[in-house]
Amino acid sequence: MAKTTITINDIARDLNVAPSTVSRALNNSNKISEKTKDLIRDKAAELGYDLNMVASSLSRKQTNIIGVMVPSVNRHFFSQVVSGIEDLAYDAGYRIIIAQTNELAEREKDILTLFNSTRVDGIIACLSLETSDVTHFSKILKNGIPLVLIDRVSYELDCPKIVVDNHEGAFQAVSHLVRSGCKRIAHLGGPMGCPVFKERSKGYLDAMQKAGLPIHAKYHLSTDLSTRDVQEAMKVWLSMPETPDGIFTSDSHTGLVAAKIATEAGIRVPEEISFVAFGDDPAHEYITPSLSSIEVPGNEMGRSAMQLILEQCLGESIDVQTIIKPIQLIIRSSSFR
Amino acid sequence: MAKTTITINDIARDLNVAPSTVSRALNNSNKISEKTKDLIRDKAAELGYDLNMVASSLSRKQTNIIGVMVPSVNRHFFSQVVSGIEDLAYDAGYRIIIAQTNELAEREKDILTLFNSTRVDGIIACLSLETSDVTHFSKILKNGIPLVLIDRVSYELDCPKIVVDNHEGAFQAVSHLVRSGCKRIAHLGGPMGCPVFKERSKGYLDAMQKAGLPIHAKYHLSTDLSTRDVQEAMKVWLSMPETPDGIFTSDSHTGLVAAKIATEAGIRVPEEISFVAFGDDPAHEYITPSLSSIEVPGNEMGRSAMQLILEQCLGESIDVQTIIKPIQLIIRSSSFR
Repeated sequence: MAKTTITINDIARDLNVAPSTVSRALNNSNKISEKTKDLIRDKAAELGYDLNMVASSLSRKQTNIIGVMVPSVNRHFFSQVVSGIEDLAYDAGYRIIIAQTNELAEREKDILTLFNSTRVDGIIACLSLETSDVTHFSKILKNGIPLVLIDRVSYELDCPKIVVDNHEGAFQAVSHLVRSGCKRIAHLGGPMGCPVFKERSKGYLDAMQKAGLPIHAKYHLSTDLSTRDVQEAMKVWLSMPETPDGIFTSDSHTGLVAAKIATEAGIRVPEEISFVAFGDDPAHEYITPSLSSIEVPGNEMGRSAMQLILEQCLGESIDVQTIIKPIQLIIRSSSFR
Repeated sequence: MAKTTITINDIARDLNVAPSTVSRALNNSNKISEKTKDLIRDKAAELGYDLNMVASSLSRKQTNIIGVMVPSVNRHFFSQVVSGIEDLAYDAGYRIIIAQTNELAEREKDILTLFNSTRVDGIIACLSLETSDVTHFSKILKNGIPLVLIDRVSYELDCPKIVVDNHEGAFQAVSHLVRSGCKRIAHLGGPMGCPVFKERSKGYLDAMQKAGLPIHAKYHLSTDLSTRDVQEAMKVWLSMPETPDGIFTSDSHTGLVAAKIATEAGIRVPEEISFVAFGDDPAHEYITPSLSSIEVPGNEMGRSAMQLILEQCLGESIDVQTIIKPIQLIIRSSSFR
């Protein structure tokens, strides 16, 4: 659908102020001076911004609360997403409540009920690993509550999605290992029921094929991302006559655990085995040798999600379906040879 | 005040079931079988448990939502606290919403207003570093909303508190460095406006005095816990003619940063400088050498806080004022010599 209406972004650009300032002014926030509000209202009128939309949006009793649902706040990526959302939300006069699914589909449903009963103005969610059926989200959309999905999304749902190109990230990681001279590259994959991990796995396979390297079945393992699964995979690999000389892990935690096991077994990293992990964590820099990664812009993804929620809260129609944020390869000691 | 009434713990003990099961049964949760409910109600009647209290508590419209307020979910300790709370809460039919203060007193007030308007059944909070005035919490107590403070508490507030003995933890850490042969022990302190960090600093001073070791003013620095402050402190220390041979840091992050700076400067850890940090984080085990710590039982503290909230939600009067949870010294390579 085409975007025919003027948005708060247009007003912001014309006045050279932040979109969040426009949002606050049109929401009549007391954090904005009357002078600025007048300026913004005048510009809105001048550009033909549909103030009725704001009015109609305001007539729904607003709580100014945004519900954020993530698998676990303890992981670096999700904490970055949350802080990106908060940066923008508080600035625009919104507050956020956070809830963790702990990767359970049942708890995800429970939390949506909670957000609904709390009458949040919008929801930003990352699906749990267990989630396959998404009817609980369809209901939220039917109730007219703005929803933005982040990272782990479902294309069955008609709402904006903020993602990264998981295939491309994996492809870059493996191609870098190839360029570093690795010939026997293994992949420590995640749960294949989750599209994100499936795409990373596909990226590994495609990069191997492009490089003309053989893929042994034993080099391509799927885990539940737990420490125990990593230990088992490493045991298999380190006892093979042809030990892998490069390992690409599907997330940060598995990368940290795998590299530690190798180092403790007396293996020289990166000379004997090189490591690259999808995802980042401050621990990548603390460990010796430091761990290379595909950096995912969690903060930026959170900000974009919140921006799309803000626009919807102001009654704007959103024509964005999917935003693909750029990833980048950070080469550290674990793969620099 | 004396505890004169029978509590859910008494019923739980007699029936050999979890207190949370008793709580759910008396709350008439549909997750408990009718048979078990009958058993628990019978035992409650037999022991003279005051069911009117439950009834009166239930007559206040319950939302079964608990608000949890922490400085930042990204830190290991707070994420442990949150998961301890969740373990018990979900089991007892409650859900939790989390909000971050980011160490800002203003945001703390804002979040309490949010929790109040969300009509949470109880609040578990850790004060922000900025908080000195606690009248916003007094109001919560006046409104009859159960409140439990955790870790960073205010003794001005008449509510249960779950803490650790910060003085004792610091004393143990420094005494361990003394036993390892350190003579010039420095302390990288936190913000002295916060009682938790003041107590840790006092523990350092007392342990030094007990060991008969001199305390140079330059060995005792206060920081805002930021990476930059740690860098500056380490710069001062490493350029002194008498470099410290032991460093006790007031939290986990400062310990990780300080140890990394020393290692990168070519200093042998623990031979030339030993490190112990107050607090724990998985990264303590990833780094080389691994970092010794005073382990704080975050999960256990969260569980206790939630247990006290549950009892209050059932209308029980709480005679507990402060629970001091045990800390333990974990000796790793950074201080083992």
